[in-house]
Amino acid sequence: MSKESKLTLADIRAAHERIRPYVHRTPVMTSRTLDGFAGARLYFKCENFQRAGAFKARGAHNAVLALPEAEARRGVLTHSSGNHGAALALAAASRGIPAYVVMPRNAPAVKKASVERYGARITFCEPTQQSREETARRLLAETGACFVHPYDDFSVMAGQGTSALELLEDVPWLDTLVCPVGGGGQLSGVAVAGKGVKPALRVIGAEPAAADDAQRSLRSGERVSAGDPRTIADGLRASLGVHTFELIRAHVNDIVTVSEEEIVAAMRRVWEIMKILIEPSSAVAVAAVLERRLPAGAAQVGIILSGGNVDLDRLPWGSA
Amino acid sequence: MSKESKLTLADIRAAHERIRPYVHRTPVMTSRTLDGFAGARLYFKCENFQRAGAFKARGAHNAVLALPEAEARRGVLTHSSGNHGAALALAAASRGIPAYVVMPRNAPAVKKASVERYGARITFCEPTQQSREETARRLLAETGACFVHPYDDFSVMAGQGTSALELLEDVPWLDTLVCPVGGGGQLSGVAVAGKGVKPALRVIGAEPAAADDAQRSLRSGERVSAGDPRTIADGLRASLGVHTFELIRAHVNDIVTVSEEEIVAAMRRVWEIMKILIEPSSAVAVAAVLERRLPAGAAQVGIILSGGNVDLDRLPWGSA
Repeated sequence: MSKESKLTLADIRAAHERIRPYVHRTPVMTSRTLDGFAGARLYFKCENFQRAGAFKARGAHNAVLALPEAEARRGVLTHSSGNHGAALALAAASRGIPAYVVMPRNAPAVKKASVERYGARITFCEPTQQSREETARRLLAETGACFVHPYDDFSVMAGQGTSALELLEDVPWLDTLVCPVGGGGQLSGVAVAGKGVKPALRVIGAEPAAADDAQRSLRSGERVSAGDPRTIADGLRASLGVHTFELIRAHVNDIVTVSEEEIVAAMRRVWEIMKILIEPSSAVAVAAVLERRLPAGAAQVGIILSGGNVDLDRLPWGSA
Repeated sequence: MSKESKLTLADIRAAHERIRPYVHRTPVMTSRTLDGFAGARLYFKCENFQRAGAFKARGAHNAVLALPEAEARRGVLTHSSGNHGAALALAAASRGIPAYVVMPRNAPAVKKASVERYGARITFCEPTQQSREETARRLLAETGACFVHPYDDFSVMAGQGTSALELLEDVPWLDTLVCPVGGGGQLSGVAVAGKGVKPALRVIGAEPAAADDAQRSLRSGERVSAGDPRTIADGLRASLGVHTFELIRAHVNDIVTVSEEEIVAAMRRVWEIMKILIEPSSAVAVAAVLERRLPAGAAQVGIILSGGNVDLDRLPWGSA
């Protein structure tokens, strides 16, 4: 069995059935003003309105609901900059099992509060990949919980792909789908779902130039690490996983990058014009479209607005 | 003919037919978390997603579209703290006629920009009722344009009432409807529409305690002036009009007030929890509900989120 075959459209359809009672079917919004800036018709899939404020609720619910009862009872554990942690906490609460979350000390306050609100136990670590993984390993040994990786996990990817199923049901004439890429869980799921439903669809990843490991990996054919990137898009600092890299190679047409200034400008435009809150990671996909980084011929463009969890005391444009 | 009969449900239904091609049918959103805070089921009518960012697009379109051709050709003119000005500019642009807008110098930058974007000619005045009115009179004499009052105008009120028709179509089981009150145009229209469709509906106005002229007028039975009130709710600084006062006396059950701190807290909660931008004037209605100022028995509560035009450089909670 090839690696790519480990995530199929059937898996994503099964995930959709499984999680449907627990997550929102989010709306698709449009804006004539932003269409004008982009020179294309844009369809925004509003995962910022998803439960716990981000698409991560989809993958976490699928992973938690698919666990056999004996394993589930010992609880679930993850490390996360925040959205996956909150989502796993919520999913565990739905099933009535414990959740343990390892978070970097510098995660936004709003994300910490969100994980706590759903009743998970937080353990803080240093803001490096190594510290996260070591802390998680120690806790796993102590608790016997089941580890749910934030992205390099097929159940999680299957859940994340369900937003693309819904978007293509609502807007079947899409020709291009743009999705932010950090660890690649959402992009993998969305690409398998999107191409599965509509093989001619182009799927484009959008990444901060300051954390361009996915673009470099895709272009070189070898998975490279993001290191410890400095980008405002705090949800996109992770490196591609082994599995997400293979799926992205197989199914994603291209990965484009945007600058930090472009991310902030796109975020502000969406707030001002659409009157909705999106977090910087979502603005990465919007910036790619507004800055016209898409391949020629992108006329009917879906954009995954991945989350809306922003610390209102620390907005990137300052305040008077 | 009594004064109250000057605005009827039939007028509002006719306005709805007239403006339907030009304005959005805005969505109704819900939030389990905010329901918990309020102790009631809440239905948010999202006029912050309306064209030009506020409910004012409804009244302005109705007033402009109802004008006879000969009058319309000379253009329309108004004074406005911003949202009505932008809405009238947009409505005039829809019909291809000139718009003249008198604005106070201290109006939020985002509102000035919005009026300019739709092609209106702005004349600035001092931030007092007297200066607004004098400047408008001078411009009317110069241009021969038709004056469209921001609220004390039956065409405008009829347009504003259309949001309540839509909300009651979507949520016919509402028992209470809460709407911010400044000059009273929206509250008048919403009250006539709401009581017309559903006589048992309770209609409650929500007002800043710092600009409580509507509550004092309703309770004393005499129209009192707001003076020059200091409130963050910049859309609610005007005093009731002659006509809106009569309609509110006839159709509104009560007017409740909230403090400036309660307005800011409610605004921030809606941003954080619902991931949508609302302006302080909208937060006044939300605060009334979250602070449990409604009459006992309010269980299924509609809230008009009147607008989303906020200056992102001047947020009331500061920024680090």
